Amino acid sequence: MFSVTVREHLMIAHSFQGEVFGPAQRLHGATYVVDATFRRAGLDADGLVVDIALAAAELAAVIGELNYRNLDEVSEFAGINTSTEFLAKVIADRLADGIRAGRLGEGAAQGLSQVAVTLHESHIAWASYERDL
Amino acid sequence: MFSVTVREHLMIAHSFQGEVFGPAQRLHGATYVVDATFRRAGLDADGLVVDIALAAAELAAVIGELNYRNLDEVSEFAGINTSTEFLAKVIADRLADGIRAGRLGEGAAQGLSQVAVTLHESHIAWASYERDL
Amino acid sequence: MFSVTVREHLMIAHSFQGEVFGPAQRLHGATYVVDATFRRAGLDADGLVVDIALAAAELAAVIGELNYRNLDEVSEFAGINTSTEFLAKVIADRLADGIRAGRLGEGAAQGLSQVAVTLHESHIAWASYERDL
Amino acid sequence: MFSVTVREHLMIAHSFQGEVFGPAQRLHGATYVVDATFRRAGLDADGLVVDIALAAAELAAVIGELNYRNLDEVSEFAGINTSTEFLAKVIADRLADGIRAGRLGEGAAQGLSQVAVTLHESHIAWASYERDL
Amino acid sequence: MFSVTVREHLMIAHSFQGEVFGPAQRLHGATYVVDATFRRAGLDADGLVVDIALAAAELAAVIGELNYRNLDEVSEFAGINTSTEFLAKVIADRLADGIRAGRLGEGAAQGLSQVAVTLHESHIAWASYERDL
Amino acid sequence: MFSVTVREHLMIAHSFQGEVFGPAQRLHGATYVVDATFRRAGLDADGLVVDIALAAAELAAVIGELNYRNLDEVSEFAGINTSTEFLAKVIADRLADGIRAGRLGEGAAQGLSQVAVTLHESHIAWASYERDL
Repeated sequence: MFSVTVREHLMIAHSFQGEVFGPAQRLHGATYVVDATFRRAGLDADGLVVDIALAAAELAAVIGELNYRNLDEVSEFAGINTSTEFLAKVIADRLADGIRAGRLGEGAAQGLSQVAVTLHESHIAWASYERDL
Repeated sequence: MFSVTVREHLMIAHSFQGEVFGPAQRLHGATYVVDATFRRAGLDADGLVVDIALAAAELAAVIGELNYRNLDEVSEFAGINTSTEFLAKVIADRLADGIRAGRLGEGAAQGLSQVAVTLHESHIAWASYERDL
Repeated sequence: MFSVTVREHLMIAHSFQGEVFGPAQRLHGATYVVDATFRRAGLDADGLVVDIALAAAELAAVIGELNYRNLDEVSEFAGINTSTEFLAKVIADRLADGIRAGRLGEGAAQGLSQVAVTLHESHIAWASYERDL
Repeated sequence: MFSVTVREHLMIAHSFQGEVFGPAQRLHGATYVVDATFRRAGLDADGLVVDIALAAAELAAVIGELNYRNLDEVSEFAGINTSTEFLAKVIADRLADGIRAGRLGEGAAQGLSQVAVTLHESHIAWASYERDL
Repeated sequence: MFSVTVREHLMIAHSFQGEVFGPAQRLHGATYVVDATFRRAGLDADGLVVDIALAAAELAAVIGELNYRNLDEVSEFAGINTSTEFLAKVIADRLADGIRAGRLGEGAAQGLSQVAVTLHESHIAWASYERDL
Repeated sequence: MFSVTVREHLMIAHSFQGEVFGPAQRLHGATYVVDATFRRAGLDADGLVVDIALAAAELAAVIGELNYRNLDEVSEFAGINTSTEFLAKVIADRLADGIRAGRLGEGAAQGLSQVAVTLHESHIAWASYERDL
C-alpha cells in the first residue's frame, strides 16, 4: 500500500456546548495543522499516488471554505460541536467528494482507495479520521 | 475510523541484560515522549472520541506510576528488559484497564475499540504497541 | 550565557483591523505554542537557571489569563491588533513582572537577566519578543 | 502488534519526465528523511521487535547505495520517475530482502511480519509504502 | 526586540569541489527548509513587525529563483561551493535587497533592523546567516 | 554572522539533590537531544563554517564519554547536580577544547568565534549554554 501526505493549516474560532468542555465553552479558537493522506495499492503511469500539486491545491481549497471563520456562525454546523475529530471528518469527506468529482485527476478518481485526515490542535493533541473511497 | 491522540513524557533509569545491548547494558536512562491514541468507529453525543481532559489525566496517571524511577528496581519488571516496545505495551495495557474500569467515562468504555501507544526514545527512534479493547 | 525554555500552549479567538489583514479581519482564532526562555550568566546553588517547575507553573498561570478567550472582548486590548508579535510581548512582560515579584524564587529574581517568548501560530510562522529584566 | 522505527536521511539529485511535474522536470534534488518501521506480533527473547543497532545499520546500508547520487544516471531506474512514493518502495523492498537474508538476525527473519517506509521530502509533504514480509 | 519568522522550502541539485566533501563531491541534491526571520525594535501602526503575507510572498519569490535548479549550472555560483551556510547568505542578502527596495512595504524598509535565514538540510543539520539591514 | 548546527543524542541516568527537585531526587534518566552550534564571521576557503563531518564526529566523541552512564557515579560530577543547563556547559566546554586542539581542523581553530549547545530533555523543556572561543 502506497500513500502520499500533504500539510496545510487552518485558523478558526468556535465554542463548545456541554459541561465536559469546561473553559472551552467560551468562544476561543485554534490553529489546526492539517495532514491529508491519500492511499492506493499501486502507482499511476507517472509513478505517483496522486499529482501532489493537485492534492495540495484541493486541500487548500477545502480548507479555504473554513479558514478565518467563526464556526459557530456556519449554518452547516448549527447545533454541532466542531471538535477536532469532527472537523477531521468534514475535511476528509470533502476531499473524498473532490476525488470522486475528478478534481485530483481521472487516475486518482479510480486509483485512490482511502483518504485520511489528521488535525493537530497543539503540540500535545491531535485527531484523525480515515475512510474508504 | 476516528482517533484522538494525547502526548506526555516519562523519564526513567534502567539497564538491559544481553550482549545485543552493548553499552546499554550499563545503567542509563531515557526520556520517552509518549503518544496515546484512542480509536472508535463513531463519535459520542458531544461529538468526541473521548473527553480529552480525562484522557490526558489518565495518561498522566499511568505515566506517574513509572516516572522518575529506576525500572531495574520495580519488582513487576524483575528479569525483564524494559525495552521501548515493552514499555509501550505496559502503558497501552494500563490505559486499556482504565478504559474498561470507566475512568475515561462510560461512553468511552463502550465506544472505544482500540488503543495505541508510541514511545519516542530520541529524534531517530521510536516504538509502538496497539491493541483492541 | 545559560538559558532554560519551557513550552505551553494557548487557544484564543480574535479579529484584526486593517486592510493589510485580508480575511483575518474576520473573527477567527489560533493555537499559539508558547516557548518561554529564561537567561542568566551563571547557575544558582542548585545548578539551575530557574526552578523549572516554578517556571512552567508561572507560564501556565500567565497563559491561563488569556486562554479560551475572545481577545476582542478583553478590555485591556481594546483598539489593539492582538498580533502574534504583540502577544509575545504581553506574555514576556507578565513573566518579567512575576520574576520581579519573586514568583520564580528569590534567586531567579536576582539572577535572571533576560526573558524571551516565542509564539508559534502554525508550522510555517512564529514570532518572538525578548527583553532585559 | 508491536513496531520499532529508525530514522536516517538521503540526499539525491534527479529529474522527472511528464508535464504533470512542471518545474520538477528540471534536474533538482531532495533530502529525504527516511523512517523505516519493523512490525511483529510478539517480542523476541530479549524483549525486542528487532535489534535496533542492526536495523539502523541495515537502513544506513540500503540508503548508502543511493546517497549522494544523481538517480537519473542509476541504470536500475532508467525510464522510471524516481518519485518519493517509488523510492519508499525501493527502500522497503531492499529492507525486506535484508530481513529474509538474515541481516537483522535469525529471530527477525522469522518474527517480523511487515515493513513500512516513509520518506519526508519537506516539512509539508511525505510518502509511504508498506508491505508484508 | 521583536521578530517574525516564515518558513518555505527549496529543492536543488549541486555538487561540491574539495576532498573535504567526500561523497558529496558527486552530483546530489537537497531539500532546504528555509526559515526567514525579520527583526525590529518596535511594532508598526498595525501592531506588526512586517506584513506576514508580503514577507511570505517575498521569501517565496527569492526561493523561486533557485528552486528546482542544478546550482552547478547557475553562472552566478560558478567556482563556488554552494554550501548550506553560503545559500543562507544568498537568501538573506536577497531578502535585504527586497526590504530596501520596499517590497515588504515602506514601514518595513525603515523599521526592520536585521534579517536572519536558517536552512535545515536534514533532521540533524542546519545552517544560518544573519545580518543587519 | 554564520553558524552551522549538528544534532546528536545522549541517554544517561542521574539523580538530583535538593528539595526543589521533588521526585527527580530519585534515580531516573533522560534522553537529551543535543544541538551543537558553531559560529564564525566569515566562511573558509571551501565555503564552510566548519567541516560538518568533523563537527559531527567530535560531537559524537564528546557525547560518547557520557553516553549510557549513571552520572551519579562519574567522579568529575561528584557533589554536582547534573542539570540540563549544567550538561549543556560541559558539552560546550569540551567542544571548545576540541576546537582549540585542532580536532575540527586548523581553519576552525582560528576562524570559529563561538559555540552554543542546546539539550532538549523533552518536547516541552530544553536548556542552552553559549560561550566565546
